[in-house]
Amino acid sequence: MTGMKFTFPVRIYYEDTDHGGVVYHANYLKFMERARTEFLRTLGLELDALDAEHGILFALSEAQVCFRRPALFNDLLVVETGLTRLAGARMEFVQRIWRQQPRSLLVEADIRLACIERSGRVRRIPRPVATALRSHLLPEEQA
Amino acid sequence: MTGMKFTFPVRIYYEDTDHGGVVYHANYLKFMERARTEFLRTLGLELDALDAEHGILFALSEAQVCFRRPALFNDLLVVETGLTRLAGARMEFVQRIWRQQPRSLLVEADIRLACIERSGRVRRIPRPVATALRSHLLPEEQA
Amino acid sequence: MTGMKFTFPVRIYYEDTDHGGVVYHANYLKFMERARTEFLRTLGLELDALDAEHGILFALSEAQVCFRRPALFNDLLVVETGLTRLAGARMEFVQRIWRQQPRSLLVEADIRLACIERSGRVRRIPRPVATALRSHLLPEEQA
Amino acid sequence: MTGMKFTFPVRIYYEDTDHGGVVYHANYLKFMERARTEFLRTLGLELDALDAEHGILFALSEAQVCFRRPALFNDLLVVETGLTRLAGARMEFVQRIWRQQPRSLLVEADIRLACIERSGRVRRIPRPVATALRSHLLPEEQA
Repeated sequence: MTGMKFTFPVRIYYEDTDHGGVVYHANYLKFMERARTEFLRTLGLELDALDAEHGILFALSEAQVCFRRPALFNDLLVVETGLTRLAGARMEFVQRIWRQQPRSLLVEADIRLACIERSGRVRRIPRPVATALRSHLLPEEQA
Repeated sequence: MTGMKFTFPVRIYYEDTDHGGVVYHANYLKFMERARTEFLRTLGLELDALDAEHGILFALSEAQVCFRRPALFNDLLVVETGLTRLAGARMEFVQRIWRQQPRSLLVEADIRLACIERSGRVRRIPRPVATALRSHLLPEEQA
Repeated sequence: MTGMKFTFPVRIYYEDTDHGGVVYHANYLKFMERARTEFLRTLGLELDALDAEHGILFALSEAQVCFRRPALFNDLLVVETGLTRLAGARMEFVQRIWRQQPRSLLVEADIRLACIERSGRVRRIPRPVATALRSHLLPEEQA
Repeated sequence: MTGMKFTFPVRIYYEDTDHGGVVYHANYLKFMERARTEFLRTLGLELDALDAEHGILFALSEAQVCFRRPALFNDLLVVETGLTRLAGARMEFVQRIWRQQPRSLLVEADIRLACIERSGRVRRIPRPVATALRSHLLPEEQA
């Protein structure tokens, strides 16, 4: 599935909603992080192992998020995740959150992460990790 | 204090941190929302009263967030909030989160909100609300 | 599967952990609520439909929780859920959270919920809902 | 104020509420933890310093919580905190959450914490910490 978007389902529970009757905005960032974690897992990259073996973490450095439509309690969402850029210590994703039925685009985001040590120092993504990631870059970026 | 930035303190508790030893990224969005709520309160705008009297909510429609440095457990932060734009149903803020000691800029964000009805329908900000807000637009935007 | 315990998997993400390197205690209550929601779904009881059709919600009225061992980032947990009592407006559950590998009991809880209207007024569980629930009471309680 | 209850204010923001229009139940545990943290701070006990100097954390081991009435968006609450027991590695609190106006008891809890090392190993509360705590035990427990 090289270059394909990865999809991850999210069910909306009470904990995710707010008094406005919709999902609280900051929670979409949690859903997108769950999806990135599962995307990495499908590549054989477990975040706890990366920490233990390489001493690295991925920290969010920039997020640009468009909230188009709200999700409601009990909705079943899908988070699409694509890796768009990989360079040095940096990794960039495009992510989209969809409601399933009726299908509707809820949230779109560009997410930039930095590879860091626990001390906070920026660190080049280790070669084996970068190799695993590179094979899943979206096509327009592989050129 | 027309045109001045509003500041709001946030103490970091266990609930805010994550296994990386720093504040979990989505939580900064919560801190910024607390600060916007308190900013509106100083203008006499209580969100529950706006809902009850005018039938309106403010929903996040766009967030552009730069995460520069992490906050740690027990840190005392300050959220600076400035209203930068007001037009029709839209309200825009610039917000910065600082650590107090030693002083350090942690997060910068541009936040756009839409005035909506509970149904989700976009609605022009009611005149008395807009008037209260306009007097607190940042100077560069009042021109 | 009448009388059997219902199991629901929970994966631990960054959002769930805290600076102590383990899952933040309040989050186990979220996991248990997700599990109760899915338990009810298997009985054909969707919480949003109960609200829309019967005008009822289930509100937590009492929780007794023992935190035995902590879950860690990336752990895969299982939440066991059993309905132990049903009477009038009241519903009681026993829930246990286990780590899968190596298998270890992390959290045990007795949870009591009240059937209420949106106004907060307590309300007898509607008969068809009670009937669906009764068939899944744990055996020791069916006697 | 030896033996007196410590009070800590909590304002309810959107992040705290759920689709039922009230505060999500697990969040009351967060409010109680903020209050315990501030209670300890008034005794000169900063949790990050206890970790750095003594290598200890306080982990929740048991919580018994009664949810009497819900808090609403924008409510101003007060969390009362009293230390009721201190023995070996164990510390027990009674906590009550009140709405201010009109005054109403919302939540009551008995909370038990264990002093542990980062490894999870239980550890006797260090003498200087226990001494600071003992002076604030509720009177009925000092006898």
